[in-house]
Amino acid sequence: MPASVLLTDLYELTMLQAYFEQGMNATAVFEFFVRKLPPHRNFLIAAGLDQVLDYLSELGFDAEDLGWLKQSGRFTPSFIASLADLRFTGDVDAMPEGTVCFADEPLLRITAPLREAQLVESRVINLLHYQTLVASKAARAVLAAPAVLLVDFGLRRAHGSEAGLLSARASYLAGFSGTATVEAARRFGIPVYGTMAHSYVEAHPDETAAFERFVRAHPENAVLLIDTYDTERAAHKVVELASRLAAEGLTVKGVRIDSGDLGEHARRVRAILDAAGLTAITIFASGNLDEYRLADLVAQRAPIDGFGVGTRMNTSADAPYLDAAYKLQEYEGKARRKRSEGKATWPGRKQVYRCHDSAGRLGSDMLTLASEQAPGAPLLQPVMRAGRLVTPRPTLTATREHARAELKRLPERLRALEEAEPYLVEISAQVRALAQQLDAQV
Amino acid sequence: MPASVLLTDLYELTMLQAYFEQGMNATAVFEFFVRKLPPHRNFLIAAGLDQVLDYLSELGFDAEDLGWLKQSGRFTPSFIASLADLRFTGDVDAMPEGTVCFADEPLLRITAPLREAQLVESRVINLLHYQTLVASKAARAVLAAPAVLLVDFGLRRAHGSEAGLLSARASYLAGFSGTATVEAARRFGIPVYGTMAHSYVEAHPDETAAFERFVRAHPENAVLLIDTYDTERAAHKVVELASRLAAEGLTVKGVRIDSGDLGEHARRVRAILDAAGLTAITIFASGNLDEYRLADLVAQRAPIDGFGVGTRMNTSADAPYLDAAYKLQEYEGKARRKRSEGKATWPGRKQVYRCHDSAGRLGSDMLTLASEQAPGAPLLQPVMRAGRLVTPRPTLTATREHARAELKRLPERLRALEEAEPYLVEISAQVRALAQQLDAQV
Repeated sequence: MPASVLLTDLYELTMLQAYFEQGMNATAVFEFFVRKLPPHRNFLIAAGLDQVLDYLSELGFDAEDLGWLKQSGRFTPSFIASLADLRFTGDVDAMPEGTVCFADEPLLRITAPLREAQLVESRVINLLHYQTLVASKAARAVLAAPAVLLVDFGLRRAHGSEAGLLSARASYLAGFSGTATVEAARRFGIPVYGTMAHSYVEAHPDETAAFERFVRAHPENAVLLIDTYDTERAAHKVVELASRLAAEGLTVKGVRIDSGDLGEHARRVRAILDAAGLTAITIFASGNLDEYRLADLVAQRAPIDGFGVGTRMNTSADAPYLDAAYKLQEYEGKARRKRSEGKATWPGRKQVYRCHDSAGRLGSDMLTLASEQAPGAPLLQPVMRAGRLVTPRPTLTATREHARAELKRLPERLRALEEAEPYLVEISAQVRALAQQLDAQV
Repeated sequence: MPASVLLTDLYELTMLQAYFEQGMNATAVFEFFVRKLPPHRNFLIAAGLDQVLDYLSELGFDAEDLGWLKQSGRFTPSFIASLADLRFTGDVDAMPEGTVCFADEPLLRITAPLREAQLVESRVINLLHYQTLVASKAARAVLAAPAVLLVDFGLRRAHGSEAGLLSARASYLAGFSGTATVEAARRFGIPVYGTMAHSYVEAHPDETAAFERFVRAHPENAVLLIDTYDTERAAHKVVELASRLAAEGLTVKGVRIDSGDLGEHARRVRAILDAAGLTAITIFASGNLDEYRLADLVAQRAPIDGFGVGTRMNTSADAPYLDAAYKLQEYEGKARRKRSEGKATWPGRKQVYRCHDSAGRLGSDMLTLASEQAPGAPLLQPVMRAGRLVTPRPTLTATREHARAELKRLPERLRALEEAEPYLVEISAQVRALAQQLDAQV
């Protein structure tokens, strides 16, 4: 999803002009991290790197961009001219998408000439923040209902087109089975699912006719929405229809329930279908679902084979944003630190080392300087050098596999939907010492 | 922001195939409305119509879209061929953007051949839902702090690129002064504002040098960020700098505070600046702001001239979605009604009439059939007929003026940030009778 280079905050450009006039363009190191996990989150799933790499690869001002900057009257001609050859020529180190991560840990580090590393701030945050937010929320639904089909249904109330597309991607990455959004299927190769709307049933003179025509139009994939008027009465109509169509070799694949007490309706509908021997017809449920409702329905053993999860997942409704930041950690070889009240950062070019316990579960992490060695494995890996990819990007399928493995390694308490005792992220002695040293200098 | 026609839910297409095979394409009437106001909202501001009109005007499948549908293996060749000439040829009636509105009231009505009216569902909701959500949230900030500069700072944590752009538009429409997002300025002509980031200060060897160089680079617009290390010490540096640069005719326009107790820091900084005679330097504040914090700072009489409001506004953090729907109300001349539990709709082609009290304030609304007459003025106006605009679209400036006038007409209790006694939306006797009559038929 290419976005204009002007999809940025004005201050990035005003700073770039000041840097240009001062001839300041030495190497800067910025890191993206989340300061604090929001309520109800015991971990995050890193996501969005792939879109950041697209963005960095395509970074540049075209003639129209430069023309707009000129007519805005805010910038000097020599500064605008200097932007014409701007490309991303820096290094990127990052956690692979799908990695479990925590507060204070850099998910991505950019090392580049100051003007490049600064300019990309707004869009890098915009891309990493949203997908990490949604993948982290979706992973909770996957943990709550691991054995069923989970489908992203959220395009309509996602915050705009890109949120619709990227939440399909982020939720699939985190373990969802697919999405209802066709464009996400085309763009990312995500499996796509769909049933029918109430309007389909309402447009027909009667419900049975609506069902029958739909089965005839989609003989292999008909999932019938049965709650437009009366769920159980509609289930009886499905029984009558399925029996009648069986003679022609036509089958009903499933039914969907979208309102009322989903568990109770599912039990009644299952009984109606089973009594007629229609045990192969699946039950799909949707409507105001999130991980809490899923956990509840799973605990009830509601006979539901799949869920459409929308709005609350792709707006991350109980925590609609992360306290995410992209901060300067080093410039011209010297570590830097923001000390603003409540927003102080750990300075320097950093790395995260992770130790696992004997069962292979996450044990603890340590935030270190990139120059340090620590026990365990480093999570940030080289992704770009001098503006070019170091290795081919993983496929979305491989990333999803990685996320699945990561979720398996979560300690039991962090898998809970309730807030658990936080995972231990130690700050290394060298990082602490560097922070103290910088504070003493100011 | 053109989006592919495949930015839609799969079920729209599976329904269209079933309609195609049945030869069902009579006139359908769909309405977009919000079922229930979320907590903490006493009213909504209608927004997003302009983007819906762009979308409808450009609706169509190109060869690539049709090719993708073909290779998906889900659709019949004759159905796919039938999509090649699909355009929007219907009628649109809608509330003008910026209109105050309430639950149950249609903001938009589409009357079109069934396949067109159905296909557009997902994207129409996606566009109207998000901008109405943000405009309604932003209007609360405008009511809470009417006398100051309010700037959208939220691109970075908006949910993707389109959310960043459309929240700049929706907040400006609702009364914000401008945005920090450059692309929103380019695309919508919204005034753009910017200062500097902490990284700018940190990249310099000392704060005073950073400030001085920024003023020299932006002699007319320098707003200096003073909380990177110590807010009050930085204010003293600004005093020293401003006095020194005055000799050269250079001025500091303002300072920005982004952390800590904003009211307390603003008072101290104001005192430091005023003591030096720098009364013209403005104070701008940002950081985790929303209408509640603004109301608090205004009540304290904090000497703050402007606010950057970001994340919580453009994610509508306390209510990140609306219970919005787009429902079939009539097909082939017959009214239709969804009766699903907790989701029943008022049937038929509808209108909203509004009465004002003697002071010009909103008195009450009545939801009627479109064929009824009622006291007051009808809110839905003809926008498109047979796929063409009836009148030129209002400019964003005119829409913003309309919203301002609408907010002035709000009854006092609805202006409060707390939930008030709901505004009266009566349902006409004819609408109720039609609902009963339809229920009796099922």
